[in-house]
Amino acid sequence: MTAVQAGLIWQSARQLSQAIRAGTLSAAELMTAAYDQIERLNPKVNAIVNLLPRKEALAAAWAQDQARARGERGGPLSGLPLAVKDLEDAEGLPTTFGFRPFAGAVAKADGEVTARMRQAGAIVIGKTNVPEFGLGSNTFNALFGATRNPYDPKRTAGGSSGGAAAALATGMLAIADGSDMGGSLRNPAAFCNVVGLRPSIGRVPEQRAFGWLGRLSTLGPMARNVDDVALLLSAQSGYCATDPLSRMELGAAFGGSLDCDPRSLRIAVSGDLGGLPVQPEVRERIEQAGAVFADLGAEVEEACPNLDGAMAVFQAQRAAGLAVLGKQLERQVPDWRQQAKDAAVWNIDKGLSLTADELIEAELERTQIYRRTARFFERYDALLCPAAQVAPFPIGEEWVREINGQPMRTYIDWMAVCCAITVLAAPALSVPGGFTADGLPVGLQIVAAPGQDLKALQTGRLFEQATGHGRIRPPIVEERPAPQAE
Amino acid sequence: MTAVQAGLIWQSARQLSQAIRAGTLSAAELMTAAYDQIERLNPKVNAIVNLLPRKEALAAAWAQDQARARGERGGPLSGLPLAVKDLEDAEGLPTTFGFRPFAGAVAKADGEVTARMRQAGAIVIGKTNVPEFGLGSNTFNALFGATRNPYDPKRTAGGSSGGAAAALATGMLAIADGSDMGGSLRNPAAFCNVVGLRPSIGRVPEQRAFGWLGRLSTLGPMARNVDDVALLLSAQSGYCATDPLSRMELGAAFGGSLDCDPRSLRIAVSGDLGGLPVQPEVRERIEQAGAVFADLGAEVEEACPNLDGAMAVFQAQRAAGLAVLGKQLERQVPDWRQQAKDAAVWNIDKGLSLTADELIEAELERTQIYRRTARFFERYDALLCPAAQVAPFPIGEEWVREINGQPMRTYIDWMAVCCAITVLAAPALSVPGGFTADGLPVGLQIVAAPGQDLKALQTGRLFEQATGHGRIRPPIVEERPAPQAE
Repeated sequence: MTAVQAGLIWQSARQLSQAIRAGTLSAAELMTAAYDQIERLNPKVNAIVNLLPRKEALAAAWAQDQARARGERGGPLSGLPLAVKDLEDAEGLPTTFGFRPFAGAVAKADGEVTARMRQAGAIVIGKTNVPEFGLGSNTFNALFGATRNPYDPKRTAGGSSGGAAAALATGMLAIADGSDMGGSLRNPAAFCNVVGLRPSIGRVPEQRAFGWLGRLSTLGPMARNVDDVALLLSAQSGYCATDPLSRMELGAAFGGSLDCDPRSLRIAVSGDLGGLPVQPEVRERIEQAGAVFADLGAEVEEACPNLDGAMAVFQAQRAAGLAVLGKQLERQVPDWRQQAKDAAVWNIDKGLSLTADELIEAELERTQIYRRTARFFERYDALLCPAAQVAPFPIGEEWVREINGQPMRTYIDWMAVCCAITVLAAPALSVPGGFTADGLPVGLQIVAAPGQDLKALQTGRLFEQATGHGRIRPPIVEERPAPQAE
Repeated sequence: MTAVQAGLIWQSARQLSQAIRAGTLSAAELMTAAYDQIERLNPKVNAIVNLLPRKEALAAAWAQDQARARGERGGPLSGLPLAVKDLEDAEGLPTTFGFRPFAGAVAKADGEVTARMRQAGAIVIGKTNVPEFGLGSNTFNALFGATRNPYDPKRTAGGSSGGAAAALATGMLAIADGSDMGGSLRNPAAFCNVVGLRPSIGRVPEQRAFGWLGRLSTLGPMARNVDDVALLLSAQSGYCATDPLSRMELGAAFGGSLDCDPRSLRIAVSGDLGGLPVQPEVRERIEQAGAVFADLGAEVEEACPNLDGAMAVFQAQRAAGLAVLGKQLERQVPDWRQQAKDAAVWNIDKGLSLTADELIEAELERTQIYRRTARFFERYDALLCPAAQVAPFPIGEEWVREINGQPMRTYIDWMAVCCAITVLAAPALSVPGGFTADGLPVGLQIVAAPGQDLKALQTGRLFEQATGHGRIRPPIVEERPAPQAE
């Protein structure tokens, strides 16, 4: 790899696509640099699966360069290599969900959001790895194996957008799409020291699953910095007539400057989101983040909305989604129980045994939580809390069994700090929040009121600029020891 | 009553509130005229219940006149007498739901929408009658009795916003709030020859019931003409942070001109919404409405979206709402089964026996219908269909047992033309569509794409201006025979 290429892959998506649109960089040159990096590092982290042959990707890049030479104007993601999360459809590539029986399920068309990103100029080169069916926040499956953490390959990259996060952290991609039901955009961002935004419900259109019933899941953007997350959001978001919860605001609102006066901000900080078990080192980093905003001139208070009942709501509404998955599997793969991982079978069966009363109670409870939180966000612009209650854990542990000696009963309990926030339908950004003494990344979760995605991004960017945590590269890239904690 | 007062009560809400704000009419003068009319005609139709004593209403009107004299600027509903639908809270008045055990349930505060209307200048003088719990489209209950149709007092005013519609048609009020799950803003408007808009879901904030779970119900505006419906909508609508489906657009958008070029419209007409039984005279009026738009220069086609499954979805999601009602009743009125009407008990028990699978299937089906219809509305600006499948029927019949010889199995089956549209979450306007040979009103339902409330209003106003059906006064007002059909 030439020095120029090595520099290229670490440039921001905004810089790269601008250079490509301006004609000072060719898409083919960027693609070559990306493939060099993928060939060098993907075998170590296993982030990208079903990668297109280099020739095909280069041909697509060349075609874009030629179009530009003919005078065609490129979109905001011009020439950026993109691997699509393997729960979403990208035309011509299998959508496997990390489930062996779906290994050959080639998508006939792009999903809505894939189409939007391609339309904006991104070039699809493969898929990013996920846990089976996207369940759980440890990216491993029997089809492709585990995705490894670039800051310590013996540890997990998190999940379910684990492949996306690891690909960003290692410089293989500058942008990546993800999705998030109970933290799948936030947890892997935290574990891999990159940025992930769970947008407000309705910001990015949803095509799969259902329309209204307790929607918990949303697609969203990931990148190495907040500006690039906002850039990708500008392409993903915007009204979609076939999504009943789709928001009317234009995506373009996110493509501009994220500047904001920190002295105008009222920030709430909670190191444990009102009493969750959190590893002490993680908690310290979050509390330090509060001090960073105070130094910037923001009004900072220790405060947390009352989230009583949120986990019960999350479990019930998630179960409804799993029931839908279960019903599809019954039809498509009659022996799915033999083929799927134990946690998935247990969880889907729980969904299939759900009662209407549980769903109705969850809905009533969620409404109450939503209203309580609306009052909280009248007082605060943003809430700071952990994006993960623990630092990245060894890959073989499957899920976290205890935190600070407190046992976790199921494979999603340790994700409560993300799941509870999901119930708010609010935007939640994970930004690099520093490192543990062992050099493992910690993620800061920044939550704003539903619809206030811009506020979450602006707040995150202030923190990023003030701290620079996101600029610490993983050791796997540099082949040097892990960075020391500050 | 003086001639001036008789003229006053038939002026439009826009004219009246403008004159009051300009100081050329006093709110007290309008209130006096309204009370004269209420005293004269309410005994004949039983539209308004729990009416405040004239003295109290006049005191409120005088207070507004004095505030204006001090230079305070009034809102868009300045000085307009308003009776609030008896399913919604108005501070100091009972919210009875037409249910005897709730006769003394005085509301401690205004509901959100009541507060918005009061804030805009409306003066609350009482409540409008409803069927018990708002269930069914025939306004009668054991507490207040039946509301009668001004065009034939032996017939029903429809429901559940039946009191509101009858009060408008008889000149007691110029604006009235209503709400609509399966047609409750549309059916009474149709039966009483006034205008009712079921807004897009999220347009007018919802505070009761739940947040997401198959929301079917919405509050909305009624009046004697489309401009006034839009005026009231401008005060009712707008973002509300505690409603998760609340739309961001400002209410003010509806307070301006509704002018629109008919030649720009692509109109679909379906006399039977794809095969529902519809009384022949009703069907003829709807088909004539298509001809009216063709004469105005619009592009008109016979077409209907595929609504297969919509009634099943409606029944399942409505049952979830009834289960919530049932659970509340169990707590508040242990012997509610003995006290409520048979249809309500049957329906609530059906809700309480709902399964999660029925709810999940309904949600999946609703999403499919939503997406199919989105494609339909890419082609058409508006769909014309009946707002009621029958003309107003005798009050004692409780509900319609057959249409064109086709038996109706339950008390909501005859409302399918409204219930099926509810599932779309779309705006649906009922405007006066002419009369049967017996002089009974027919309502034209105008449906636009979700979010396109303005388009529905513009289309309705074109029809209203072209036909003048809404200007035919009911015989009970003039004490002359019913008008002849055209």
